[in-house]
Amino acid sequence: MRQRHLFTKTRKEAPTDEVAKNAQLLIRGGFVHKEMAGVYDYLPLGLRVLNKITGIIREEMDKIGGQELLLSALQSKEVWEKSGRWSDGVIDVWFKSTLTHGAEVGLGNTHEEPLTALVGEHVSSYKDLPRYIYQIQTKFRNELRAKSGILRAREFLMKDLYSFSRTEEEFRLFYEECAAAYLRIFERVGLGELTYRTFASGGPFSDYSDEFQTLCDVGEDTIYVDEERRVAVNKEVYTDKTLDDLHLDKTRLVEKRGIEVGNIFPLGTRFSEALGLRYRDADGNDTPVVMGSYGIGPGRVMGTIVELYSDNRGIIWPESVAPFRVHLVALAGEEGKGVRTEAEKLYTLLVDAGIETLYDDREASPGEKLADADLIGIPWRVVVSEKTQAQHALEIKNRKTGATEMLGEKELFDELKTEN
Amino acid sequence: MRQRHLFTKTRKEAPTDEVAKNAQLLIRGGFVHKEMAGVYDYLPLGLRVLNKITGIIREEMDKIGGQELLLSALQSKEVWEKSGRWSDGVIDVWFKSTLTHGAEVGLGNTHEEPLTALVGEHVSSYKDLPRYIYQIQTKFRNELRAKSGILRAREFLMKDLYSFSRTEEEFRLFYEECAAAYLRIFERVGLGELTYRTFASGGPFSDYSDEFQTLCDVGEDTIYVDEERRVAVNKEVYTDKTLDDLHLDKTRLVEKRGIEVGNIFPLGTRFSEALGLRYRDADGNDTPVVMGSYGIGPGRVMGTIVELYSDNRGIIWPESVAPFRVHLVALAGEEGKGVRTEAEKLYTLLVDAGIETLYDDREASPGEKLADADLIGIPWRVVVSEKTQAQHALEIKNRKTGATEMLGEKELFDELKTEN
Repeated sequence: MRQRHLFTKTRKEAPTDEVAKNAQLLIRGGFVHKEMAGVYDYLPLGLRVLNKITGIIREEMDKIGGQELLLSALQSKEVWEKSGRWSDGVIDVWFKSTLTHGAEVGLGNTHEEPLTALVGEHVSSYKDLPRYIYQIQTKFRNELRAKSGILRAREFLMKDLYSFSRTEEEFRLFYEECAAAYLRIFERVGLGELTYRTFASGGPFSDYSDEFQTLCDVGEDTIYVDEERRVAVNKEVYTDKTLDDLHLDKTRLVEKRGIEVGNIFPLGTRFSEALGLRYRDADGNDTPVVMGSYGIGPGRVMGTIVELYSDNRGIIWPESVAPFRVHLVALAGEEGKGVRTEAEKLYTLLVDAGIETLYDDREASPGEKLADADLIGIPWRVVVSEKTQAQHALEIKNRKTGATEMLGEKELFDELKTEN
Repeated sequence: MRQRHLFTKTRKEAPTDEVAKNAQLLIRGGFVHKEMAGVYDYLPLGLRVLNKITGIIREEMDKIGGQELLLSALQSKEVWEKSGRWSDGVIDVWFKSTLTHGAEVGLGNTHEEPLTALVGEHVSSYKDLPRYIYQIQTKFRNELRAKSGILRAREFLMKDLYSFSRTEEEFRLFYEECAAAYLRIFERVGLGELTYRTFASGGPFSDYSDEFQTLCDVGEDTIYVDEERRVAVNKEVYTDKTLDDLHLDKTRLVEKRGIEVGNIFPLGTRFSEALGLRYRDADGNDTPVVMGSYGIGPGRVMGTIVELYSDNRGIIWPESVAPFRVHLVALAGEEGKGVRTEAEKLYTLLVDAGIETLYDDREASPGEKLADADLIGIPWRVVVSEKTQAQHALEIKNRKTGATEMLGEKELFDELKTEN
């Protein structure tokens, strides 16, 4: 993409009302726009990152047999009353509204109820199970406070998968498969090393759940981490009994702050009983379906990446989720026609080679262009200037390491082919 | 995809409360689920169709220089008060809700206001224009009546593009480019021949607008069509003066019903003035930006296709938007092991060849499988049975023409390669 055409501009200063680093950097770089507290628009660069993340999540969910659908945000009171979760006293983040003819509707903050009801129309026999169904869809949560940028938004994209199994054992097998898929996802988006499967409370549904916590000082959760065994325990269940059950050695646990980037929940028969999702087993017995739910917020993943990977000049995107792979910067002064010609040619070669490239073809000062490149944080910066032309080479800089090399065109393409 | 794993089942009868043909067939085929009147979930088959349609729209919008973003559904009162459109008296389809701390919020039914305000933060000079910005995003409209299935939903996906130009002339050039792109889109999704650019009222914003009307008996609009010149006039502006202005000959116009599958609107400076979107022109004059808006509802396009292309056995999808290209059906009786082996092998070959295939590997009767294939409406049905094995061939049937051929494996792949 030609930067000249990109409608967003970078900003030197973040808005004063924005306290979270992720929002500050994302707004400065032109990735997001704050519509109101906790409500963000994803601008072209930000949407590209978000799509990279959802693309990785989708691949991993498909691999474990997930089938994708898209449920509505508008929710009917009747369905949620069956589970007892329509009440604001039970779910305190409902947004509710009213149809023209007077009926109340809600905006989905999660989708156990409508999906359980829907699956009930298609499942009747043990032959119809198990089923793994997911969506990547916008949730609405009327959070009292929203000061963490895109880490905790009032409107946000969520991948929510629900499993429908015949037995506790069958459920448990998938639960572990999905946990493994989650670790692959966090690995692929660049959060692998810092993300721990974390034993946590099951909330109202079950005895326990598993969170995926990424170590980060601004995280809302306190967790106790066994770095060697790569597991952690959330403070909310940090008791001697829990540690015993998990065979964890208290002396090896380190207290840390974590951002909950994903969670997986056994739901048991809580919703299948409430909404009548039952099946006939092989012996003809009428049995409630065993369920689980599995969530990841792609926006929160994106915010976590920004919280962790930046320096005083801007964001440092991992290659897998960067909006572009290469930031081609033409530093052409008044006499820079030759520079522009070479840069144009190189841009065409990069695009033809399938290398996603943001090409800074703007008429702007070298200082402004280089500062913007650092702020936007694309992994590879390639500079064409009178200086590089004098050396018959291209300057390639790695945003993460800061390492700079002078390479010929062929070497550049070789480097971009091998690195990933 | 293996049909054995697909969680949805077909239904012989449509729900009795569903009067629209599109909803009846889509529900029976397992494409959509009705959450409440005017609110539909897109099930795996339906989501595949929807994604095909949005994919085509996205390609065409990118081709004319559109840049994609994603605006929030939640809307702040302050922004909309500036244009005077917060009031329910002005926009009568608002869904509104309340933040926990008491502020009112709306759910976006269109996005001129927030996008104009946002663009104002990034545009200041004539060098920053023109800009073409779009999204494929969920709109909410609190329709009083919702009986047309997915043709008029209370929650629906919309592609809305907004143009920001320096002058009326510059705007007009893009307006025509976008009109041409719209015709390409309707052509590509299979509605080309039946879709007419239709002169219509500009509503509150301008003197006129252009609708894209697809001829269909259940359409809500009455239009007058010049079939030879391929243009039409909406009844709302069907006056002698309009016909004169458009050089249309009344005697050649035929009255038809149409579904408005797209519309494009000159907005002039209505929103740029209200929201302060101005730029300095080349002479340093402070000037309001000239805007336009361009909408297509992918769900409505999908519903229109179903209204038009079906028979008494089910849907007939155009190839470009079909959920799969091939429906491979194994008709294996008790002794059908050989059939299943051949079908499995063929399924692998089809998938490896990149041909999207739904493979009916269920244990069900031949009658049930063939009826389901007709209802779901995938363009090519390939049957493997004891009968086809006896002939050392495969039976391939075109859903649209009904033509059946017996082909060898190589011939089948040749046919699938050439047809499109």
